Amino acid sequence: MPLAPVVILVRPQLGENIGMCARAMLNCGVTELRIVQPRDGWPNDDAIAAASGAIDVLNSAKLYETTAEAVADLEYVLATTARMRDMVKPVLKADEAAREVHHRHDDRATPNCGILFGPERSGLENEDVALANAILNIPLNPGFSSLNLAQAVLLACYSWLCCDNRFPPAAAAAPEEGDNAALAPRGEIETFLQFLENDLEQAGFFRSPPQKPTILRNIRNFFFRSSPTMQEVRTLQGILVALRGKKRGSKAENQS
Amino acid sequence: MPLAPVVILVRPQLGENIGMCARAMLNCGVTELRIVQPRDGWPNDDAIAAASGAIDVLNSAKLYETTAEAVADLEYVLATTARMRDMVKPVLKADEAAREVHHRHDDRATPNCGILFGPERSGLENEDVALANAILNIPLNPGFSSLNLAQAVLLACYSWLCCDNRFPPAAAAAPEEGDNAALAPRGEIETFLQFLENDLEQAGFFRSPPQKPTILRNIRNFFFRSSPTMQEVRTLQGILVALRGKKRGSKAENQS
Repeated sequence: MPLAPVVILVRPQLGENIGMCARAMLNCGVTELRIVQPRDGWPNDDAIAAASGAIDVLNSAKLYETTAEAVADLEYVLATTARMRDMVKPVLKADEAAREVHHRHDDRATPNCGILFGPERSGLENEDVALANAILNIPLNPGFSSLNLAQAVLLACYSWLCCDNRFPPAAAAAPEEGDNAALAPRGEIETFLQFLENDLEQAGFFRSPPQKPTILRNIRNFFFRSSPTMQEVRTLQGILVALRGKKRGSKAENQS
Repeated sequence: MPLAPVVILVRPQLGENIGMCARAMLNCGVTELRIVQPRDGWPNDDAIAAASGAIDVLNSAKLYETTAEAVADLEYVLATTARMRDMVKPVLKADEAAREVHHRHDDRATPNCGILFGPERSGLENEDVALANAILNIPLNPGFSSLNLAQAVLLACYSWLCCDNRFPPAAAAAPEEGDNAALAPRGEIETFLQFLENDLEQAGFFRSPPQKPTILRNIRNFFFRSSPTMQEVRTLQGILVALRGKKRGSKAENQS
């Protein structure tokens, strides 16, 4: 059986919904659940009651403080959202996304793909979406497209379950073979971005403090969306070190 | 617009589940609901509360005393069941069933296909299944295949919807119009890369001259592949200017 994607619930509100998500996941053979800041704490009795037996999924769920931490070891992350986003990112229908996950999981020993789901009321924040390689869209009646959380999880997981390898991968831009061609885990990209942000801060790049979060999010969105390979992240880090090294030599007073 | 199948809930127990079924139906553009002997009577406040706005589906639902009456005007009926039945009847997977419904609906003015769903606890009786042309099976994790009622309705209706290209993939999450979201012309990326190469040259980044062409090609590949927008190219240029500006102030002797 091919590897299932990791399901990541970001700031879910109701324990009952988390339990129903676990049930929907297990219905489709998807077992790895990660939860970012569940509103009502964890473990949660309502979740257990609603899981209808999918207790192992809940018991093995991992908790995270931030979405970035929850996706740090993943190479390919989809953000489930129906809303317009002011970000340029590929949009995959659920079945296309499922084929992409299948393709990227080939020959892996551990899951390297994840699907993000936002809180019940508001959906994912732009900062969460910025961490993703692509947007997963479930095509529904445009006049009535609001799904509850567990049903969104069900349709995404069912699409994965229905998919097999008969179909060619959706991605035209699949990386080349070889270790260096493996996509970088999100955490490696995050590390690079932290260094970049520090350097930009020191260089006075953020002239307008109120705009800093938006500018940072755009930068983050670009690099996460770009799905760099490990080698590319190393090159980007090398570029930064090279430019920073020059500065360090000459502007040591800037270093604290 | 192709006709959607009729959804027939046979002896549903909880009003809440009926409401969630109505919501799942409307999510998929399925609007005709028939209900056989709802346990808690009709209309039902719990159903309305759980429908999350799919009120028209509930208001226009028709009530029946028997399953036979509920399917009397239909030509093709599917019985949703996961259990083995001691009956000889074709078994269709959800996607096959959906194609069958599409095919049989061609050129009809009124719905002639229906899908039966049984009570929450027990599922359809053999007498109900006997009324069907075929069995609809939703392929799930064989070790954990019990769906709640609304989720079974959702998967059956979604399978039908997926056969249909009525709803194009979310124009929703496509990038917004406007200059900032437009992908940068290759020439703009090239200009940025020329500046980057110059800066890297000056920073001593290319320590091994023979490897320089390969490294440069990898960098170029990353940025071209990433399909940055015009705004992102401007941001990348701004990053470079910020880092270079620091250097210029202190290392003017490097500038030729």
